[in-house]
Amino acid sequence: MIAEIVTVGTEIVSGSILNTNATILSEKLLELGIEAYYHTSVDDDKLRLASVIDIALNRADLIITTGGLGPTKDDLTKEVIAELLDLELVLDSNMEEKISQMFLDMNKSMTENNRKQALKPKNSIFIENTIGTAPGIFININDKKIIMLPGPPSEMTLMFDNYVIPLIKEDFYVLTKSINTIGIGESTLETKLLDMNLSTRETNITTFAKMGTVEIKIIGKGKNRNKLKNEIDNITLKLSKELKQYIYGYDNISIEEVVLDMLKERKYILGLCESCTGGLIASKITRIPGASNVLDRSIITYSNQSKIDELNINASTLKKYSPVSKEISYEMAKGLLDKSNIDLAFSITGYAGPNTKETEEDVGLIYMCIMTKYKYKVIKCKFSGDRQSIQDKAAIKALNEIRMFLLKNH
Amino acid sequence: MIAEIVTVGTEIVSGSILNTNATILSEKLLELGIEAYYHTSVDDDKLRLASVIDIALNRADLIITTGGLGPTKDDLTKEVIAELLDLELVLDSNMEEKISQMFLDMNKSMTENNRKQALKPKNSIFIENTIGTAPGIFININDKKIIMLPGPPSEMTLMFDNYVIPLIKEDFYVLTKSINTIGIGESTLETKLLDMNLSTRETNITTFAKMGTVEIKIIGKGKNRNKLKNEIDNITLKLSKELKQYIYGYDNISIEEVVLDMLKERKYILGLCESCTGGLIASKITRIPGASNVLDRSIITYSNQSKIDELNINASTLKKYSPVSKEISYEMAKGLLDKSNIDLAFSITGYAGPNTKETEEDVGLIYMCIMTKYKYKVIKCKFSGDRQSIQDKAAIKALNEIRMFLLKNH
Repeated sequence: MIAEIVTVGTEIVSGSILNTNATILSEKLLELGIEAYYHTSVDDDKLRLASVIDIALNRADLIITTGGLGPTKDDLTKEVIAELLDLELVLDSNMEEKISQMFLDMNKSMTENNRKQALKPKNSIFIENTIGTAPGIFININDKKIIMLPGPPSEMTLMFDNYVIPLIKEDFYVLTKSINTIGIGESTLETKLLDMNLSTRETNITTFAKMGTVEIKIIGKGKNRNKLKNEIDNITLKLSKELKQYIYGYDNISIEEVVLDMLKERKYILGLCESCTGGLIASKITRIPGASNVLDRSIITYSNQSKIDELNINASTLKKYSPVSKEISYEMAKGLLDKSNIDLAFSITGYAGPNTKETEEDVGLIYMCIMTKYKYKVIKCKFSGDRQSIQDKAAIKALNEIRMFLLKNH
Repeated sequence: MIAEIVTVGTEIVSGSILNTNATILSEKLLELGIEAYYHTSVDDDKLRLASVIDIALNRADLIITTGGLGPTKDDLTKEVIAELLDLELVLDSNMEEKISQMFLDMNKSMTENNRKQALKPKNSIFIENTIGTAPGIFININDKKIIMLPGPPSEMTLMFDNYVIPLIKEDFYVLTKSINTIGIGESTLETKLLDMNLSTRETNITTFAKMGTVEIKIIGKGKNRNKLKNEIDNITLKLSKELKQYIYGYDNISIEEVVLDMLKERKYILGLCESCTGGLIASKITRIPGASNVLDRSIITYSNQSKIDELNINASTLKKYSPVSKEISYEMAKGLLDKSNIDLAFSITGYAGPNTKETEEDVGLIYMCIMTKYKYKVIKCKFSGDRQSIQDKAAIKALNEIRMFLLKNH
C-alpha cells in the first residue's frame, strides 16, 4: 500500500507554520507497516487543491489529508474531495447536534460558519474528534482509502491513534530499528556500512544526519514477521559491536532520556548551572516525565553578580580569569556541588554570540565541567553557527559528555 | 511566478525529520514577492523523484529542491533532473579541487563518494556552499528556473540568502504584514474580520492559529509598491485600533522578544524562578541576542529542598500549602527579589504531569507570580494536553503575563 499525505493550508506553503502533521503521520504509518512515499502541501485554493488530490488519487492507495475541515471560508478539503469523487454533501443532524452541544459546554455561542462542519460526503463515515469541533471523514471508494483529518496536531494525532488505525491496518509488515550515534560523520559512517555489507533481500540500511548526531535506520519489509525481526536483530547486533563507541541509544531515544535513565539507575541526583545555554539543558531534561526524580535544581547564572551570589565564585577569580574559562567552569561546578545535596554537578559557560564585547574569534568557545565528590572533568569545545545553533550543539554535547562521564564512573 | 519547493529524502517522508526547509524557503520567497503554492516531498527513489520533478516542471515556473546532493548513493536529485531535462553531467575540475581542499582543511580524507559532488548538468551554474561540501546548482531552461540546494538547513539558508536571491528576484511586489494576537480564538477573529470588510482588490486578510496565539496576515500583490504599502498600512492601522487589547506584536516577533524589548526600554533587570517549566522560559529568553543585558539569573527549583535553599521558602509554609499554590508562587518570587539585585521577579510552579502523586485533576494547574518592590500579581491558570504542551502553553502565558504587567506598570 502506497500512502500520500496531503497537508492543506496557505499557512503551510507560505511558510507561516512548520508542517509537523506530515512528519507525525508518516512515523505512525511506518509503525503500521505502511510507507508514505509522498508528502504534498498546497494552499487553500480550490483548483490547486483539486489538482493535488487528483494526482494523489492516481499514485497512492491511501490518502490522508489534514487541514481544511474548519469553519472558515478557506476550509475546502471536504468540498473538493466530494466534488472530485462525485459525492453529494449531506447534513448530518447528529453531528450538528453534537457540535452545538460542544459550544454550549464551552459557554460559547456557535457561529453560523461552524454549521458546515456537520456536512459529509454521501456514504462516508465521520471520525470522532473529542477535543475539537471539526470531525474527520473516512471514504472507502474504488480500492482507495481517503482519510480527512483536521489541522491541529493534537486533534489529528488523537483521532489517528483512536479511530484511524483500525481503518487502515493491513497484513504486511514493515519493521524498523534505529541506532543513534554521535561523534561520527555521516559519510564516514556510510562508507563503514557499505564495507560491512549487511543488507539482505528484505532489509535496507540508511543513515540520517540530525543536529550533531547520525541515525542509522534499518528497514525490513515482508510477510513473515518473525523472520524479519530476526534479520533486523542480527544486523543490529553486528552494528552495535562495530560502532559501540559512537552509539548512545536505539529507536530515537534522545540523549537527555538516556542521561535521565542512567542517573535514575545509579540513584544520582543532578544539579546544573548554565550560563551560555540559558536553561536549554534543564529544559530538555525537564521535558521528560519523571525528571523531578533526578534533577534537583538548575542555576542559570547569566550575570557575573549571579555567579558570585549563587555559586560562591570569588570576584577576584572572575576578574583574573575570564567568565568563560576552565577555571570558572570548575568553580561553578564546585560552588553548586558544595551548596546542595547532589551527586553530580554540571556547569557550562561560553560565548553564544553575537556580541561586540568579545572578539569574533571567541564566539562559540565553551567550557563545561562535570563534578562528583571524587572527581571532575573539564571539557573545552568550540562550535560554529549562529547563537541558537551554538546553544543547540552545546546542549547536545553537554548531555553526551555527562553520558560518557557516567559510563566511565559507574 | 508560481513556485514549488521539492524536498527530497526518505528521512522526510518516513517521518524521521521535520521538513523545516520548505517552511524556511517559502517564507523567504514570500519576502521576494514569490508565492509557493506547492510543497512536495518524496523519498530517495529514482522513479518517484523523477515523477515528482516532472509534475513540478509542468505546474511551476520556479522549482527549488533541497536534499539529494550529498555524497551517498541515495543522493539522486542532480542525476534525476539532468536526465529529465536531457542534460549531460560533466565533471567540474575547479569544484573537484575545491572539495578536496575543504577536506584537507578539516584534516579529513576525502572519500571517493565525495567526488560526485563536483559533477554538474551541462550549461548549469554551481551555487557556492561555503560551509558544506555539496554545492548547489542553478539551471535556467525553457522559461523555468531550477535551483538545487543541499539538505542541511544552515547550508541551504546561507546559500539562498547569498546567491539565490539575485537569480530569482522579479519586478512584481508581494508585501505582507502580520499582526500577532493572543487571547482571542481564530473563528471569533475571522467573524470580526469579515464584519470589518477591509480587503481590497489587491489585498487579502487571513488568519493562522499557532500555539495559543493567532496571526493575522495581510497579503498585498501588485505592480505599484507605494500604493500597495499604503493600503496595507491603512488596514493595519484599522485592525490595530479594533484589536488593541489582543495584539502583542507585528511581523511574527515572538512574545519573548517583545518582553525583552520592554524590559530593556524600562531598564528593568529580570530574575526568574521556574519549577514546572524547568528552564523553558529562561531558555526562550536567552535564545535572543542581548538577553544578558536584561536577565540576571534564573533559579530552577525542581526539588522542594532547592526551593528552601535557593528561595528561602519556609519548610512549614511548603508543608502547609502545596508546592503548587498561590502562597508558594508568592514566596518564590519574594525569595528571589529579596536575594538579588533585580527589578522584576517572576515565579512559576505547577503540575506539568503525568504524575501518579497528584490527582489527575491537578495536572495542568499552574500558579505564577510577578513581583516588583512595589507590587505583585498572582495568576492561577489551568492548561490541558500532555506534559510538553502544558509546559509550552504555560511559557507563552507567562511571557504574556509579564508583558501585560509591564504595560500596566510603566
